[in-house]
Amino acid sequence: MSAVLYGVGLGPGDPDLMTLRAHRLIAGADVIAYPSLAGGASFARAIAAAAIRPGAEEIVMEVPMSTARAPAQAAYDTGAARIAKVLDSGRDVVCLCEGDPFFYGSFMYLFARLAARYRVEVVPGVTSLTACAARAAMPLVARNERLTVLPGPLPEDELRARIEGAESVAIMKVGRHMAKIRGVIEALGLTARAVYVERASLPQEVVCPLSEAPDDAPYFSMILLVKGGDPWL
Amino acid sequence: MSAVLYGVGLGPGDPDLMTLRAHRLIAGADVIAYPSLAGGASFARAIAAAAIRPGAEEIVMEVPMSTARAPAQAAYDTGAARIAKVLDSGRDVVCLCEGDPFFYGSFMYLFARLAARYRVEVVPGVTSLTACAARAAMPLVARNERLTVLPGPLPEDELRARIEGAESVAIMKVGRHMAKIRGVIEALGLTARAVYVERASLPQEVVCPLSEAPDDAPYFSMILLVKGGDPWL
Ligand SMILES: C[S@@+](CC[C@H](N)C(=O)[O-])C[C@H]1O[C@@H](n2cnc3c(N)ncnc32)[C@H](O)[C@@H]1O
Ligand SMILES: C[S@@+](CC[C@H](N)C(=O)[O-])C[C@H]1O[C@@H](n2cnc3c(N)ncnc32)[C@H](O)[C@@H]1O
Repeated sequence: MSAVLYGVGLGPGDPDLMTLRAHRLIAGADVIAYPSLAGGASFARAIAAAAIRPGAEEIVMEVPMSTARAPAQAAYDTGAARIAKVLDSGRDVVCLCEGDPFFYGSFMYLFARLAARYRVEVVPGVTSLTACAARAAMPLVARNERLTVLPGPLPEDELRARIEGAESVAIMKVGRHMAKIRGVIEALGLTARAVYVERASLPQEVVCPLSEAPDDAPYFSMILLVKGGDPWL
Repeated sequence: MSAVLYGVGLGPGDPDLMTLRAHRLIAGADVIAYPSLAGGASFARAIAAAAIRPGAEEIVMEVPMSTARAPAQAAYDTGAARIAKVLDSGRDVVCLCEGDPFFYGSFMYLFARLAARYRVEVVPGVTSLTACAARAAMPLVARNERLTVLPGPLPEDELRARIEGAESVAIMKVGRHMAKIRGVIEALGLTARAVYVERASLPQEVVCPLSEAPDDAPYFSMILLVKGGDPWL
């Protein structure tokens, strides 16, 4: 049997929200891989830390925090090559991914590079989407309601059109786009229905009405907006 | 301290995709509650079965499988009243919910009835959305892509307009709406990009191109449609 690359979702931050399968794979891994901000810490590694075997080999992919694509592509090219070498030697690699691997997850970049040549198994994880909804005590969608997930970096006009046409909305990657997003939601008269969630499930978690959210939001934050009344009653 | 109602997400079916927290709460529960199809089995209970303590008290809510709302509402009214009685006696209740509680989850009906009066904690779970994507080896959304989740029972015209305007799409609750959904996707020329997933993560799982999907789909099935090329490379 050839070696397997596991793309393992870790959930939104609290290690207790890892799946049993993720925990077992990490605890048994001889080689783990994960991205980290260049020169900084790795959120994924921090979530998994207590489960990682002492002595496990660690492949760190330093991804520059920039909107330019080429530097990140280069980091994943190098990471994929190192992972391929381990797989070629017959050893499995467990790749750590915050949240779910296929929901805006970093593992997608490795999947695109390696899935054609190696056996890959993706282990789904709890997304930040439903973790934020749980912490905000905000049911997202029921019955025949629609859900739209939008990245905050989208242009203002597009955000406005998409939010207007949507029912329940989650806006990811808020960060420095907060002022723009807040303006759009305010202009649509929806501020009273919007909730801001930062670092859901972590000790530093913040949950508050959008009107009270910080102007300078961190990267790990989300806005939830549910237009429906109480249709699940 | 007053008693707590836990709404616990169980993931898409494989018990190994429960979170560590869900597993611990279930294993420690004196009273569990869950919905079941009237006269039939409970999928939620089946997922949690191996973790449930022998002798735990079980509150079963028999929900009629009908599109009429009143009978289901009555079942949740009765269930909420029984749960309230246990909470009033100072004992916690762990309510089992397939997937994630706030993502089209049955727990939303209990939350609507009990959250104002009792302490409620929602434990997020792996949704069928990302579980299906993992099993289909189909990355859902990366970078600035948008995701739209649509329930299959929506009218044909609305489905067409929403799918047309969307980027990545997941269509839930396919079941007996398969012919209608398939027709819409075919008319939009998107069949080649659509994948059908049935009972993801379970032994009876089916993953195939939409063109090969059964005409009579079961309730636990989903269609994924990703329009983007390979923007994550
Ligand atoms: C690159 S995406 C990764 C998403 C991840 N794969 C998932 O499944 O949730 C990063 C974005 O996810 C959201 N996010 C991730 N973890 C979060 C948390 N604990 N609290 C709030 N938002 C979070 C934020 O919107 C952040 O900008
Ligand atoms: C009432 S919703 C419950 C969703 C659940 N709360 C979640 O988070 O995934 C039921 C729908 O979820 C989808 N579903 C749930 N489990 C599934 C599975 N294992 N495989 C495929 N689809 C599933 C189907 O579309 C089904 O009609």
